[in-house]
Amino acid sequence: MNDLLKVPKTPKGVETLNNILSAATQLIYERGYHGANIGDITKLAGVATGTFYVYFDSKISLYRYMLLQFSHSIRRELAEKTRGCKTRREAERAGLVAWLEYVRDHPYVYNIIWESLYVDRKLFTEYYETFNKAYVSGLKSAQDNGELANIDLDVLSYALMGISNFVGLKYCMFSESEVDFGNVADEIMKVLERGMFTDYIPAAPVPVPEKARDMNFRVEVDFSFLKQKGKESE
Amino acid sequence: MNDLLKVPKTPKGVETLNNILSAATQLIYERGYHGANIGDITKLAGVATGTFYVYFDSKISLYRYMLLQFSHSIRRELAEKTRGCKTRREAERAGLVAWLEYVRDHPYVYNIIWESLYVDRKLFTEYYETFNKAYVSGLKSAQDNGELANIDLDVLSYALMGISNFVGLKYCMFSESEVDFGNVADEIMKVLERGMFTDYIPAAPVPVPEKARDMNFRVEVDFSFLKQKGKESE
Repeated sequence: MNDLLKVPKTPKGVETLNNILSAATQLIYERGYHGANIGDITKLAGVATGTFYVYFDSKISLYRYMLLQFSHSIRRELAEKTRGCKTRREAERAGLVAWLEYVRDHPYVYNIIWESLYVDRKLFTEYYETFNKAYVSGLKSAQDNGELANIDLDVLSYALMGISNFVGLKYCMFSESEVDFGNVADEIMKVLERGMFTDYIPAAPVPVPEKARDMNFRVEVDFSFLKQKGKESE
Repeated sequence: MNDLLKVPKTPKGVETLNNILSAATQLIYERGYHGANIGDITKLAGVATGTFYVYFDSKISLYRYMLLQFSHSIRRELAEKTRGCKTRREAERAGLVAWLEYVRDHPYVYNIIWESLYVDRKLFTEYYETFNKAYVSGLKSAQDNGELANIDLDVLSYALMGISNFVGLKYCMFSESEVDFGNVADEIMKVLERGMFTDYIPAAPVPVPEKARDMNFRVEVDFSFLKQKGKESE
């Protein structure tokens, strides 16, 4: 007995659980977490409502289980696709291609993972902090091997996750036509391997003033950009 | 008269609109777009419900206006903070620090902008595609000047947006303690200026197999990671 779900003991039970998970994935993608109720999930899964509670004690437990399973399945996929890589460089490139393939085949994962920000921000934070921890551990080995420059690994890990996620948005969610993920990865590798600038001049650090961190909800109306927009279309 | 809002003609009208915008920002942050109703927004703004309709024809118009205004205000902030920069390198660094400062001071923008993925995916796509267009235009000038390497500018723009957004998550949303944004930007500049790898070997492109793009909602239960998790805590 796990704290998120009751593990079924028979193949039939596993099949039922798979149906519930698949139905929940589809409905949370289509209607959002709050719009996907347990009755509709079990109906789409073809089981009685009560069957849900054989496996999960609540919708939030199911959702937490889904996040955990996505996180695990993505990391396993990346681990498998980078297993044969001899260098961290090769692994980063293969990992990026594997991620783009994963998102192309499971485009709903963005919606479902990012919705955690709205369901319970702790889940969202935990999702990325857990991913970061694993990523940093891999980067650390490469840094110890002398393969990586002396870069803060938390910053680097989040930068790399940001690149993957936003390039994934562009080429798996926004673009109508399919692109060659290998080409996309090659463009990213240009940045990671040699940087984006043609000439290297270390920049002097700019001091950042200390500031209190209170949230200010004051928003002022601003028409200037509407006018500019108007002008552009004149 | 704009298609999103009726522009007020008096200072009092502008003040009322500012109050509505501020209240909407707070409530959409706290309760989500669907949870923030017009009655509660006007109540928090201290105006009658009918006053809302003096300016907006619907909640979606208000929300679209908010997205447009955030997009404009972020780009203006970045433009101002990078105005004195002599090189694109300086501008990228200053822009990253300016973005982190903006998010620190307006942490709700992440929630409100990203919720567009759930309100209407077209708004989310449009938000980033518009940002991308402006970003690519700036990068293009730098590339024409010979400041940037020969990198696909759409890929580069999304990679840079991804870096900013995910580093912003880490240091403005996830981290308990304040960090020096200048230091964070310096770490990113190491990647952008010289790359993350200590030794440059061009990687051979890996061919990506063509695949049909049909969404498959089939999800299979996976206990192996739960077992691993259990083991770790034994």
